[in-house]
Amino acid sequence: MVEHSSLDTMFLNKYCPSSSSSSSSSSSSSSDRDGKLLHALRGSLGKKYPQKSGEVLSAQYGLNLLLVGVSLMLALAYQGPSASEETVLAFLSALMLLQLFWMGCYMGRRERRRSAPPERDAHAATSWIKGGLTMLALLSLIMDAFRIGSFVGYQACVSVMLGVYPVVHALHTISQVHFIWFHIKDVIKRYETFERFGVIHAVFTNLLLWSNGVMTEAEHALNDHKKRLAALGYLNFTVGSEEPNCNCTTSACSMFSSSLYYLCPFNIEYHIFVSALLFVMWKNIGRKLDQQTKRKQGSTGGSCLLLGPMLGLLALASSITVLTIYIIHVEESADAREAAISMYYCFGIVILACMSAAGAVGLLIYRVEDWPMDTTPNPARTLDSKLLLGSSVGSWLLSWCSVVAVGGAQSYPSYRWSSLAYALLLVLEKCVQNLFIIESLYRRRLEPGECPPNSPSHREIYSVTATMAPPYDGIINHAFESSDRHREVLQTSKPDNNTFDKTKDVSLPIGLGVKSSPSRKRQVLKNIAIFLFMCNISLWILPAFGCRPQFDNGLEEASFGFPIWSTVLNFALPMSLFYRMHSVAALFEVFRKI
Amino acid sequence: MVEHSSLDTMFLNKYCPSSSSSSSSSSSSSSDRDGKLLHALRGSLGKKYPQKSGEVLSAQYGLNLLLVGVSLMLALAYQGPSASEETVLAFLSALMLLQLFWMGCYMGRRERRRSAPPERDAHAATSWIKGGLTMLALLSLIMDAFRIGSFVGYQACVSVMLGVYPVVHALHTISQVHFIWFHIKDVIKRYETFERFGVIHAVFTNLLLWSNGVMTEAEHALNDHKKRLAALGYLNFTVGSEEPNCNCTTSACSMFSSSLYYLCPFNIEYHIFVSALLFVMWKNIGRKLDQQTKRKQGSTGGSCLLLGPMLGLLALASSITVLTIYIIHVEESADAREAAISMYYCFGIVILACMSAAGAVGLLIYRVEDWPMDTTPNPARTLDSKLLLGSSVGSWLLSWCSVVAVGGAQSYPSYRWSSLAYALLLVLEKCVQNLFIIESLYRRRLEPGECPPNSPSHREIYSVTATMAPPYDGIINHAFESSDRHREVLQTSKPDNNTFDKTKDVSLPIGLGVKSSPSRKRQVLKNIAIFLFMCNISLWILPAFGCRPQFDNGLEEASFGFPIWSTVLNFALPMSLFYRMHSVAALFEVFRKI
Repeated sequence: MVEHSSLDTMFLNKYCPSSSSSSSSSSSSSSDRDGKLLHALRGSLGKKYPQKSGEVLSAQYGLNLLLVGVSLMLALAYQGPSASEETVLAFLSALMLLQLFWMGCYMGRRERRRSAPPERDAHAATSWIKGGLTMLALLSLIMDAFRIGSFVGYQACVSVMLGVYPVVHALHTISQVHFIWFHIKDVIKRYETFERFGVIHAVFTNLLLWSNGVMTEAEHALNDHKKRLAALGYLNFTVGSEEPNCNCTTSACSMFSSSLYYLCPFNIEYHIFVSALLFVMWKNIGRKLDQQTKRKQGSTGGSCLLLGPMLGLLALASSITVLTIYIIHVEESADAREAAISMYYCFGIVILACMSAAGAVGLLIYRVEDWPMDTTPNPARTLDSKLLLGSSVGSWLLSWCSVVAVGGAQSYPSYRWSSLAYALLLVLEKCVQNLFIIESLYRRRLEPGECPPNSPSHREIYSVTATMAPPYDGIINHAFESSDRHREVLQTSKPDNNTFDKTKDVSLPIGLGVKSSPSRKRQVLKNIAIFLFMCNISLWILPAFGCRPQFDNGLEEASFGFPIWSTVLNFALPMSLFYRMHSVAALFEVFRKI
Repeated sequence: MVEHSSLDTMFLNKYCPSSSSSSSSSSSSSSDRDGKLLHALRGSLGKKYPQKSGEVLSAQYGLNLLLVGVSLMLALAYQGPSASEETVLAFLSALMLLQLFWMGCYMGRRERRRSAPPERDAHAATSWIKGGLTMLALLSLIMDAFRIGSFVGYQACVSVMLGVYPVVHALHTISQVHFIWFHIKDVIKRYETFERFGVIHAVFTNLLLWSNGVMTEAEHALNDHKKRLAALGYLNFTVGSEEPNCNCTTSACSMFSSSLYYLCPFNIEYHIFVSALLFVMWKNIGRKLDQQTKRKQGSTGGSCLLLGPMLGLLALASSITVLTIYIIHVEESADAREAAISMYYCFGIVILACMSAAGAVGLLIYRVEDWPMDTTPNPARTLDSKLLLGSSVGSWLLSWCSVVAVGGAQSYPSYRWSSLAYALLLVLEKCVQNLFIIESLYRRRLEPGECPPNSPSHREIYSVTATMAPPYDGIINHAFESSDRHREVLQTSKPDNNTFDKTKDVSLPIGLGVKSSPSRKRQVLKNIAIFLFMCNISLWILPAFGCRPQFDNGLEEASFGFPIWSTVLNFALPMSLFYRMHSVAALFEVFRKI
């Protein structure tokens, strides 16, 4: 108990070093009042430091951690005198070690208090998400092994940090996966302020590791771009100093460095996913759980999954084909390059049109179905929706830049109009898919004996309980607040019979006409979800492994100039990649839920 | 009633043009089911389109509107062939006209239904915020008048859009201020989906006008920077083509263009403020208001405001002095430049140290006081807190970049260490100020007869109602959830007498020792709020009118390179300016509330 209050004080002192010294200097007239304040403070600080302040304080700590890292990386990107790669790696290693220390403390405390297991948020991370993360973590571990191997080969001429970093990272990955498996669902209610700092430290450490990965990738893509331009004779490109200045003492160095290129995307996705999970854990600290949300959703057997998976596999196979052809042809000649880019856009138009159509059909089914809304508080779901919308911004920006570029283009390559169509379809597809995923996450299946909220039997019940008021208003859309409706009906006091009659007229025939085959509709939705799932994997693979026509087509570069356009790409492409991976996860959730 | 459902359908069709055509093409095997779907859809669409989907759909529309504008502005920044200034101005004018049309529709409908006035959110925009906005709007109108005057002078050689835009902007400003005065508190419950689109359109139109202003300012700052370097002989700078290619036919053109420079910052703040207010209105759509939140907070008379306003006025006066000296000296010679920058940093260190101290004293007072927490739902307050934290990121990034730059600097100007101290104090000051403002917004004053939640009398009541459980847990900080505590106490079933005894021991003497003079503490808090208020105005004035040592000191430019550093500045400085203006508003709110 004493431990807590001293920790709290420690954090305040660490964070506001001037608070004790400055309070006496600023108001010198009333020093005895200050003495009383400080005396009272010492006791009351640990006792009731408000939750909201703990939240704000730890959020500020996390943001500043991120910004320190970002400014170091910016200095590294310029290759100026301020920061070398070792500085950044040392900083990241220190953060990881601190996180390891905190995770150790946390798990040790949990172990000691085995008799009182913490409350758990059932929505926080399903076991298939944990499984997926473990896969990504394994690939990250392989990457670490390759990095260590590469360090051993070049040991003579590279900094020792290049060897320390992968060791720390491997250790960090293993402990973090263990932590996620056993503790990510915990709802922390003890030592809140201390744990808040620990969890937010973990969130932003992973975000920084993600930024570092993204920056490495961006550098790589830029080098690729220059190499391709050099291959076509546009640019005099001398192969940069990516390789160290000494010979490799083992025979596997080139294998290591080429494999790293293919493993890096998985490592990037691993870190961003972990930080989203940890963020939900941070939001859950001190939360009071609803006891009634423990309903288990069993899946109905006998699914008829044929069209969705088949079309999805087709999309996956063709995207891998497109990737291979693109990467080979784009370096060959100007004509082959143009053909490769055209092929990419045509493929994109077809797959995006199919995805938009599938999403629209899903939305139509929701419009005619009367499944109830799930309004229980769920930080994981709220975060999912916000992340989907937020990360769409990246590729929408790319799309609108393409539209502007095509609109004002001075050169007329053959893929001009297909690029325009591709950009517009990309906007449409993400809009439809976001709507579909968010609506799916907020719907819940009907229980066996439950009536849909808008069915005649429900209406009659409402009519009986509230004779003065319309049971369901056609203008005010409260479909998402179904749990409140009963109360609302009882409170409403203004009669509006006109509305009531009209909606009643419209709704009854529909209520009777549509309820023909809910299980068949569910089959359709399941097929749509699995199809979109595989399409999103395809659209992740293409840019993740080097198929980035935004670099190669030249249209946008002519309109925005290379500096602006490469900045936009470095900002938007990582978001776009994250969007695809995140919708893969969300669509799998949707698939299991329907 | 019919109007609504057709509007809803119209939006869905407009937004998802492929939804009706694609549904038949994608699943050709079962066309009669699709027919049934479409038939059912026509009736049910308008009836119960869920609120959440309307929210997501309109958010997506707004985001895409913003991104179209941003990509046009990026193309303009490159001065490539794709976009000219007229394109951007025409786009903005079209958006403003569309917003005018929507506001007209909205006000007309409200006028027709005068008998049923809408519910109002009392927290949405206080009258002093409206007053401040009206001032900013007046300055914007003057700017429009100057722009029109400038257009008349250069009429012969500039595009007609340069004349149309300020006229539309003036019209837009007048109607928008009228709208804000009479309708910003409305909680919309009719035609929800349509109004959602209208409000979000207004939000993002204002955000785009803000971006446009920020871009003009950034260009201006860059030109200033180049001019200063040219004056010192570092750079061969030919005065750019800012002026049109013909002679001004009136005598006031140069007066107009120099005045525009000083009016632009107010116009920028006007637009960002309006979009924040409209965003709260958007969040309020369809919200159910708590009836009990209508408590009026009268201010206690007889305030003793002396130290705070005096110190604040001192800060304001000295910052204007610093601004004048800085702008004159920074163009003179290398030595005068260095002296001016040193002076700026010294002034900054003093003012930031005072502000941190004041904020820390405020936080200390909250730690020893037992004022209850206000936990009523309030979108305006939530947005305020998030905007404060979010906009701090800009200047924190600048600070950490400075720290990295000083850490790795190769040159040693005299202001090196003062720049480091300034950067670190800036981080500290924003952390403390954010904590102070957010805690102040969440506290509420004690009612005359009310006991503080932690006082002995309260404790006894709790002890009587819940003998099994500790009435107030020293480890679990629920101070922000005081309204739930009673319920929680009744639910808790685990006895933890050890904790209970300890906290009781600690809290009782404090409860008795500190409650000496709550009104005196309130006076101190009021003085702190007014002091911070004026300091934030000072720190807004400095960068808004051209005192930007981040451009002139050369330290960061050496570490990050000019392209990266100017990008960082163009991103972070507008956020930093917005932060200051926003804390001014929040601190005034705090001042009134205490």
